[in-house]
Amino acid sequence: MKIKLTIAYDGAAYAGWQAQKVGLGVQQLVEEAMAKILPGARRLHSSSRTDAGVHALGMVAQVEITDRPAMTMRKLALALNAHLPPDIRVMAVTRARPEFDARFDAKGKQYRYFIWNAPAMNPLQRHHAWHVARPLNLAAMRAAAKLFLGRHDFKSLAATRAYEMKSTVRTLSRCDIQRRGPSITVIIEGDGFLYKMCRGIVGTLTQIGQGKIVVDEVKTILDKKDRRAAGMTAPAHGLVLWKVFY
Amino acid sequence: MKIKLTIAYDGAAYAGWQAQKVGLGVQQLVEEAMAKILPGARRLHSSSRTDAGVHALGMVAQVEITDRPAMTMRKLALALNAHLPPDIRVMAVTRARPEFDARFDAKGKQYRYFIWNAPAMNPLQRHHAWHVARPLNLAAMRAAAKLFLGRHDFKSLAATRAYEMKSTVRTLSRCDIQRRGPSITVIIEGDGFLYKMCRGIVGTLTQIGQGKIVVDEVKTILDKKDRRAAGMTAPAHGLVLWKVFY
Repeated sequence: MKIKLTIAYDGAAYAGWQAQKVGLGVQQLVEEAMAKILPGARRLHSSSRTDAGVHALGMVAQVEITDRPAMTMRKLALALNAHLPPDIRVMAVTRARPEFDARFDAKGKQYRYFIWNAPAMNPLQRHHAWHVARPLNLAAMRAAAKLFLGRHDFKSLAATRAYEMKSTVRTLSRCDIQRRGPSITVIIEGDGFLYKMCRGIVGTLTQIGQGKIVVDEVKTILDKKDRRAAGMTAPAHGLVLWKVFY
Repeated sequence: MKIKLTIAYDGAAYAGWQAQKVGLGVQQLVEEAMAKILPGARRLHSSSRTDAGVHALGMVAQVEITDRPAMTMRKLALALNAHLPPDIRVMAVTRARPEFDARFDAKGKQYRYFIWNAPAMNPLQRHHAWHVARPLNLAAMRAAAKLFLGRHDFKSLAATRAYEMKSTVRTLSRCDIQRRGPSITVIIEGDGFLYKMCRGIVGTLTQIGQGKIVVDEVKTILDKKDRRAAGMTAPAHGLVLWKVFY
């Protein structure tokens, strides 16, 4: 049978979802925990591959298990967590349809990027938000965010690895910027994301907020299809894979 | 001249605001940073003394400095932060009236307590929220929270050290419970707080939410003026001294 897992993790200690030559992957630790409880479990297939340092609250993955587990799905989650470090948690386990595929069935994904915008960093958020000391022009950032909405070739916003993909065209359905005092959250939703694309968008929006890039330049950036045209890549530790839609 | 500092810190690594026989205090590190920049600075006097592991976003303290600093107050904050570890930040520095006293001038304080209420802990909040796995009855907790409002003798809710104080009567002006999915925040405001009083209130409210204590028992708990009458003390790492009012 097939099961679907919703996994959350603090990315600080990991090379990303997947293991790299140097550095542990979250996937590997979840597979190891699974091997201890469900000896017949095969490889875990995930909706996304987060980068080194990026966090997740709603990563989704499926796995084929040979035998129906003796325990309930709720207990299975508890048992897996007992074999995982505290920075990785299985938030939910459910039974999946035999044809379910976390990656190809995903209709969309939501990422959230957290910024602390004040002269001094909030020490309670130092591991999960980007510290931007100078004031940001939210109106300019919001106007620019609208220009990213819809179907575009996002080649300019993604890291070069995205060039290897067949298509760099994606559709963004949401790019909202919420502010609550010094705390800014960028909510980005789309049908798919290229390698480092969210961080390229947030880095560019932030430079627009600082007046280093003008709002209208977003159109030129998208048109150029060249990473050098866009702004900086925002650091990994502010980004969270929030939810995957099916 | 006198200056007023607003200080934020992650309490995980500290024995509290004040140094203990074993363990560093936040106060000591801020005083050391100050000594490097303002050689004439005297002892720091704070609005509150947080316990080991408790965090702060808006701790207020004042200090008497002999000479007017050569830099602006904004630069002074930056300079202090350059000499502090990343888990302690001076959020603001302002000039204070000569008679200002962070402790005795405080009209009230707001604490916030964070709970993650779901079977599995959110790994991104594991250092700043209390994990309560079983579902909580928010309606019961809110009804009980109302009973803590107003002027009461809070002896039953505080640790024994509070018995040493002249009076254990305090006035709570706010005790709100906000929920957003599995994330619960208890906002407590009052004219003053006894040792471990917030954690006693939150521990008791949580046991009410679990059906271990009935709502009406709050009156009896307050009447008994005995710590054994109330519920458990919630763990330190969920509590933040949010703001001090003047």
